[in-house]
Amino acid sequence: MKVLICPSGFKGSLSPQQAADSIEAGVLAVLPQASIRKVPLVDGGEGFTHALVEATGGQIFPIEVTGPTGVPVESFFGILGASNNNSPRTAVIEMAAAAGLSLVPIHLRNPARTTTYGVGELLLAALDAGAERIVVGCGDSGTCDGGAGMLQALGARLFDREGQLLPHAAGGQSLVRLDHIDFRGVDERLGHTIIEVATNWDNVLCGPHGVATVFGKQKGATEMQSRKLSEALEVLAGVAARILGDEKVGQAPGGGASGGLGTGLRLIGARLRPRYEVIAEYIDFGTLFEDCDLVLTAEGGIDDQTPRGKIPGEIGQRAKRSGLPVVVIAGTIGDGARVNYEVGIDAYTCIIQKPMTLDEAVRDAARLTKESAECVIRMIVIGRLLGRKV
Amino acid sequence: MKVLICPSGFKGSLSPQQAADSIEAGVLAVLPQASIRKVPLVDGGEGFTHALVEATGGQIFPIEVTGPTGVPVESFFGILGASNNNSPRTAVIEMAAAAGLSLVPIHLRNPARTTTYGVGELLLAALDAGAERIVVGCGDSGTCDGGAGMLQALGARLFDREGQLLPHAAGGQSLVRLDHIDFRGVDERLGHTIIEVATNWDNVLCGPHGVATVFGKQKGATEMQSRKLSEALEVLAGVAARILGDEKVGQAPGGGASGGLGTGLRLIGARLRPRYEVIAEYIDFGTLFEDCDLVLTAEGGIDDQTPRGKIPGEIGQRAKRSGLPVVVIAGTIGDGARVNYEVGIDAYTCIIQKPMTLDEAVRDAARLTKESAECVIRMIVIGRLLGRKV
Repeated sequence: MKVLICPSGFKGSLSPQQAADSIEAGVLAVLPQASIRKVPLVDGGEGFTHALVEATGGQIFPIEVTGPTGVPVESFFGILGASNNNSPRTAVIEMAAAAGLSLVPIHLRNPARTTTYGVGELLLAALDAGAERIVVGCGDSGTCDGGAGMLQALGARLFDREGQLLPHAAGGQSLVRLDHIDFRGVDERLGHTIIEVATNWDNVLCGPHGVATVFGKQKGATEMQSRKLSEALEVLAGVAARILGDEKVGQAPGGGASGGLGTGLRLIGARLRPRYEVIAEYIDFGTLFEDCDLVLTAEGGIDDQTPRGKIPGEIGQRAKRSGLPVVVIAGTIGDGARVNYEVGIDAYTCIIQKPMTLDEAVRDAARLTKESAECVIRMIVIGRLLGRKV
Repeated sequence: MKVLICPSGFKGSLSPQQAADSIEAGVLAVLPQASIRKVPLVDGGEGFTHALVEATGGQIFPIEVTGPTGVPVESFFGILGASNNNSPRTAVIEMAAAAGLSLVPIHLRNPARTTTYGVGELLLAALDAGAERIVVGCGDSGTCDGGAGMLQALGARLFDREGQLLPHAAGGQSLVRLDHIDFRGVDERLGHTIIEVATNWDNVLCGPHGVATVFGKQKGATEMQSRKLSEALEVLAGVAARILGDEKVGQAPGGGASGGLGTGLRLIGARLRPRYEVIAEYIDFGTLFEDCDLVLTAEGGIDDQTPRGKIPGEIGQRAKRSGLPVVVIAGTIGDGARVNYEVGIDAYTCIIQKPMTLDEAVRDAARLTKESAECVIRMIVIGRLLGRKV
């Protein structure tokens, strides 16, 4: 059997490569002769930089930046490699490496306060490294400041109606007082640098499907905080609409990516793109499914959001065009997961083997993922025998 | 596809019938045309009486007895029905209905203290109902008194070396003082009543594999309590060896069933039998696997004990003789579960869909079991298609 293993990572637990290795071990435990191709996948979040750097033979550069709570964190950016020779010198950064949810200690999780200041510092570091083009990955953010912190790090000045400067790196809640932005101090190298942003195209800044409403709780906000944050992002949308001449900025695709960072990046001239369009430049989705009988993918969680730009959803839709069966191995199966049966996913299963805490599952994820893959293959082998008989 | 669904119940959650219904719903969600046969199964524990009464068209009689902690509990026994016409009038009782672990509140779980007194009361009630034969199901006990409480309820008197009566219903720990037993007061109807006991044949009373050691912890004993209880059961074994003229009573198969109740029942002339031999008189295992492509069974937990007389182990071994694939749907997958791959079980999966508590899993077990069965069938269908192509 020819098996394509193309998992996402399990956030805070297994990298995409580790997930792929675990799944491979499970497949081989049942079918030692199986022909396996591993293509670890990323969205714009954790792992984005390493994936693109590895795909191009590039290089990672470590750097300390301001973390989402203001405390310095070890971060990094990448310079893409030789296989990209004809392109402009391209840096890649992931916002999660400077402002990701996993960088925010649980007791400090409050997206009204956390900042993307470090993302601006990563952009400056990329410029210092001579980047002519910067690819920014969005996803797994612990922030909801509309990119305000990033803008400040780049030299922009945010003012309230009285002409008072908004405090630096004060989080999304401070935007409720925003009146106008002075871009004169912004690093001028940005003017002749291409910035492309890999975003979840479904994420918008404002309204009932706005980022504060949809993702506030998972970033640690109370319902009240999410509502206030929503109002603050409305204020940002008003200011951004004037700057960009786009009345619909609050509903623009990708503008809500990473707590509105997408919109902040638009304000410095970045181009937002659907993240799989960006990734497809480096991973050849076109040939991914060639010469394959079965596709195994994986994600930390599968739920009703999965078809909206998550890796198993993308894989399911693309594999379906080739008529291939797709099984998802998930850390958790969430509400409304059944909707995935309609987007090319044939079956999904959960790695959990008994009542346990999330911490326990995270600690044991490699073994659980291997055994879950083994279980999947065992059932498929049962079916294969039945198919030959019945 | 012809699917045999023969699950156990999930203790404290789904009856065998409910488990079978949930699994059926999951199968039909994927294969509406599947031909399904449901045979809910029991071992000697919870559900034993109802299963045999239903299989024979018999009748259930409610009765209040002394519970395992001394507090009265609602219990019941059964009289087997017409399909059993040529046999002696047969009563069936399950010890779990009078002394089961689920009758012991968690904070009172201490097998050194709990009693089988109510089991003796059930036996008396069966005699009052005119039983000429009594089938006793062992399993799911919350006690470890070697049947001492039951013997006392039937009229036996237990003495220490000083000729002092041991207290009534005082639990296994009191046996440490046992010196001899006076059977003169025992209900004399027992002398002409056949008593057959459905036991886990692997359970012995004493030694390193004795019941106190193997099951003490799961019944709520500390390691120290289990050790003391082990010593008390050694004392019982010494006394029982003299009465029965069987020096090996401590290692006799089934003698450790239900915390040593098996041995206590031997002392009143009962015959111990492997539980599946008893059940097979009412459920025809011989024809169970006829005309079937796939066997789905289920159990609250699958682990390294499963091949030792648990339902999925029995089903796996028997189905293997017919060359049928067997999948186990489990509430939890425990330590050493892989050993089941060697006893006729082809695959197992867990109903849990995310990190959750046991309570949450128990509450939602019907849905989780249905969806787990659906997942199994979806994977088998993938395999069936591959089998026809690859």
